[in-house]
Amino acid sequence: MTTAANSTDAMPGLDEIRAASDRLAPWIHRTPVMTSRTLDEVCGGSVFLKCENFQKVGAFKIRGATNALLRLDEAGRARGVITHSSGNHAQALAQAGRWLGVPVTVVMPRNAPSIKRAATEGYGATVVPCEPTLAAREAAVADLIGRHGYTLVHPFDDWDVIAGQGTAAWELLDQAGPLDLVLCPVGGGGLLAGTALAVAGKSPWTRVLGAEPKEADDALRSLLSGTIQPSTDPRTVCDGLRTSLGARPFAVIRRHVAAIVTATEPEILGAMRFVWERFKMIIEPSCSVPVAPVLDKQLDVKGLRVGIIITGGNVDLAPMFDALAAKWL
Amino acid sequence: MTTAANSTDAMPGLDEIRAASDRLAPWIHRTPVMTSRTLDEVCGGSVFLKCENFQKVGAFKIRGATNALLRLDEAGRARGVITHSSGNHAQALAQAGRWLGVPVTVVMPRNAPSIKRAATEGYGATVVPCEPTLAAREAAVADLIGRHGYTLVHPFDDWDVIAGQGTAAWELLDQAGPLDLVLCPVGGGGLLAGTALAVAGKSPWTRVLGAEPKEADDALRSLLSGTIQPSTDPRTVCDGLRTSLGARPFAVIRRHVAAIVTATEPEILGAMRFVWERFKMIIEPSCSVPVAPVLDKQLDVKGLRVGIIITGGNVDLAPMFDALAAKWL
Repeated sequence: MTTAANSTDAMPGLDEIRAASDRLAPWIHRTPVMTSRTLDEVCGGSVFLKCENFQKVGAFKIRGATNALLRLDEAGRARGVITHSSGNHAQALAQAGRWLGVPVTVVMPRNAPSIKRAATEGYGATVVPCEPTLAAREAAVADLIGRHGYTLVHPFDDWDVIAGQGTAAWELLDQAGPLDLVLCPVGGGGLLAGTALAVAGKSPWTRVLGAEPKEADDALRSLLSGTIQPSTDPRTVCDGLRTSLGARPFAVIRRHVAAIVTATEPEILGAMRFVWERFKMIIEPSCSVPVAPVLDKQLDVKGLRVGIIITGGNVDLAPMFDALAAKWL
Repeated sequence: MTTAANSTDAMPGLDEIRAASDRLAPWIHRTPVMTSRTLDEVCGGSVFLKCENFQKVGAFKIRGATNALLRLDEAGRARGVITHSSGNHAQALAQAGRWLGVPVTVVMPRNAPSIKRAATEGYGATVVPCEPTLAAREAAVADLIGRHGYTLVHPFDDWDVIAGQGTAAWELLDQAGPLDLVLCPVGGGGLLAGTALAVAGKSPWTRVLGAEPKEADDALRSLLSGTIQPSTDPRTVCDGLRTSLGARPFAVIRRHVAAIVTATEPEILGAMRFVWERFKMIIEPSCSVPVAPVLDKQLDVKGLRVGIIITGGNVDLAPMFDALAAKWL
């Protein structure tokens, strides 16, 4: 289902990211960049948060999904697309399909939270349940592609998806001005690869760092060993970062990413709470991973201008509102 | 301690609000205005949220407090100011005092949450504890004024504070364009009075509505009866809206506010959750009160352009992060 990254010749460059940015402009939000004097005072640098939590469907994933659909030809759009995901990518692809009139099928494990299934269906996609194993999922996708001619839009191992994700950093460089450093989280690697390509093309003197939970440090291990290391059932609050790297993202990351930094679970929750309290905005745990080393000064950014991609804001708020209801209603 | 509103001749007009806006510009954020397609689809209008939750100290209160200090003469600034509050006004006045080198004293009941005392002291103010009764508080303030010549900066019953609070709506009218309706919550009435004066001066065809919890509907009862009705220990989640109206705000509200709308506690929490989930931003319960009737269509805004002042984002996030820590750490 995934293909080897032997075609690095297809790796998007400056022109492809710029084209993706122009292509996406009518569909997505140019999200704001937020700053906090307190954060800057704590770390000694100037930190710019690119707020994809305010993006359509609440996450950067709409960029890659929409770019992939816009790049399909007429026949491909008519046949429809398929993906396997129970997270933000599924909802993003469903939304993009609705905008563009492209039928979207999502293969989802039977044990996925019903709220995620409902959200994906709410955007108009067809959800096909499968057994919760990798083999069953791949078989279901292959079967549906064989029968209907769907195009697979992989959540991260796809050059059009990667180019789309890179448009967030592309905008950030326009909005924040010159940056010394850009950080973003790394799960499957689509965002980090797109970010690295955008920065390499537009601002080659800027270093790009990936950030991942210490409990799911497969990207770090992959970079050190030179081959993709699997992420095996990691226990981290960052549900978006439990995946192993894709081949295409890995090829980009080896070439263009300076280093991977990690954060422990307490550091991640501490950084998340800091952003909620100081920026008054809701960010997912995954977004907090690159914030943590800056806030805790494990990464020295004194005097530097630092961009961080805040990936999304889809968080289950039930604990907060259950507590308020219990006290007040 | 409070004086009667017999001096409506001092009521700020267009020129005073404009002057306050210019005076405050170097000190405060020109906060963004946020919109949501979902909210607009639900209510059938165009809703513009003026995001004072992103303001310095996390609330609009910094506007009135800073304006009051900037209006003091040299001698008054040197002697210092005093207020009684355990909420956002105390922290706002402390922050403004630190900026301007004005000593700030805050009389706070002994049983106020220690976190509020710490926050106020963190901004450099001197906190003087008193017994938790109105008589003890007024005696403590009068005694300190007698001994030190402090100027009282009342949280809402003060024309300079009212003019400062009005600058939020003043900016909103520039940012959102023409509005049919502006809503904001009403507690002591400083924000609603300032908003009404700003709108009356700058956009007299725009109607201004106040919003308050049904459980604390003293402003509604006051308007209906024509005299200030006390708010007696109301049980509402909106800790900022439990106060009775001040005399000066009431004089403005009678003259310039079209109506008061109310929301029940479930409606308030529902609107708050909607904003957290859809706008991905943290707003206090108080801010949700004017959102609720728009969202629930109890107020018909179909085809209208509606501005809402989102007053602040200072919320205790412990229930959310305690739950995450219990699950993941």
